[in-house]
Amino acid sequence: MSNPTAAMLVIGDEILSGRTLDSNTNYLAKELTEHGIDLREVRVVSDDATAIVSAVQALSNAFDHVFTSGGIGPTHDDITADCIAKAFGASIDVRDDARALLAAHYERQGSELNEARLRMARIPEAAALIDNPVSVAPGFILGNVHVMAGVPSVFKAMVATVMPTLTGGAPLLSQTLRVDRGEGDIAGPLGLLAKDYPELSLGSYPFQKDGKYGSNIVIRGQDNAQIEAALARLASEMGV
Amino acid sequence: MSNPTAAMLVIGDEILSGRTLDSNTNYLAKELTEHGIDLREVRVVSDDATAIVSAVQALSNAFDHVFTSGGIGPTHDDITADCIAKAFGASIDVRDDARALLAAHYERQGSELNEARLRMARIPEAAALIDNPVSVAPGFILGNVHVMAGVPSVFKAMVATVMPTLTGGAPLLSQTLRVDRGEGDIAGPLGLLAKDYPELSLGSYPFQKDGKYGSNIVIRGQDNAQIEAALARLASEMGV
Repeated sequence: MSNPTAAMLVIGDEILSGRTLDSNTNYLAKELTEHGIDLREVRVVSDDATAIVSAVQALSNAFDHVFTSGGIGPTHDDITADCIAKAFGASIDVRDDARALLAAHYERQGSELNEARLRMARIPEAAALIDNPVSVAPGFILGNVHVMAGVPSVFKAMVATVMPTLTGGAPLLSQTLRVDRGEGDIAGPLGLLAKDYPELSLGSYPFQKDGKYGSNIVIRGQDNAQIEAALARLASEMGV
Repeated sequence: MSNPTAAMLVIGDEILSGRTLDSNTNYLAKELTEHGIDLREVRVVSDDATAIVSAVQALSNAFDHVFTSGGIGPTHDDITADCIAKAFGASIDVRDDARALLAAHYERQGSELNEARLRMARIPEAAALIDNPVSVAPGFILGNVHVMAGVPSVFKAMVATVMPTLTGGAPLLSQTLRVDRGEGDIAGPLGLLAKDYPELSLGSYPFQKDGKYGSNIVIRGQDNAQIEAALARLASEMGV
């Protein structure tokens, strides 16, 4: 049985301008890999309604799960929640349950729940809230789309909430063999090995260190015995 | 006149599994921003021919320029060149000019130009080569798609070759104002400012430091006088 599939959608001009280095994708990728869910595609789009809606629809149709990060804060460029609603043809407004969370939080803080902050209580009608233990304003789940914050500490907290609720497949296992030769010397035997182990995925990641070429060969799969056998054969062929 | 648009396509299972953190996108994003080319979308897909071909076609049709990274080495999972050819309906084979570059390089190195290494000379018929001063195996340009290596040092060198050949627009300028208040306190005035300056892009990037909330407000645009005026108004309203 093959694993569930997933896509990530990163929303934000600051990633596309290069101002901010996206770290959420790499975090989610590792979490999904451990959980046995295959991350198949990532997209980054700008804070533009048309781009967001069309990416959400494409990814939601193509994969089992979609995870978004960014665009759910209180400012004018935070349009993710409205775009998700539009993508699903759902209605959206300030919701009482989300408003109550925010009201209690800002009262404790002695801050005002003003119009801008109230935007963070705009949640599509049928969506389930995702808890935000860091800064309270919730994410939400609509259809197969998990809508989460862009701030990395909040994103991580929301992933931690969501991940146990998802049914994973067999976790992807991997072993790495470092070979101190150029990829061109390794490619032949590696290609033959890949043919003999069609259920494993063999990747070669070249590096240069102190002027010498080398490569990390990563063998991935779901059956540890198979991985070990392939690794042993490769190590013997490479004389490692 | 609006700026040329661009998309980036990152190819590689190692990014999607979380093993490797993609740094090429952020590097290219900064270069394009300086050069006045708007990066509008990024996609990451796995080493899968169907996924690569369909992403290349979609991005090539939607944007002025497409830049790819990854999958042009000598191993069996390096299928980018063949996929680009397929996306454009172009023929592909080992090309004499690319073979000559590799032959000279491996002769100097005292290594063999074996079958695996020769794969790196597979270049679509009508493509122009992109120089690789780091490890010789060339990238190429076919249609509006620039095909470059995934290894960051090689990717950067290829970007340096390609960038001066592209016609840029007005570079995107930006100013940042740090405000030591939560986004919810800033959002109201910021939204009004955005309405008064429709040609500027105003972004708010919240942070938490020493238990206090703050936000970096970034004002982006192509007219420095306008940016300065908006910045002065915001600073005065925020009492900074």
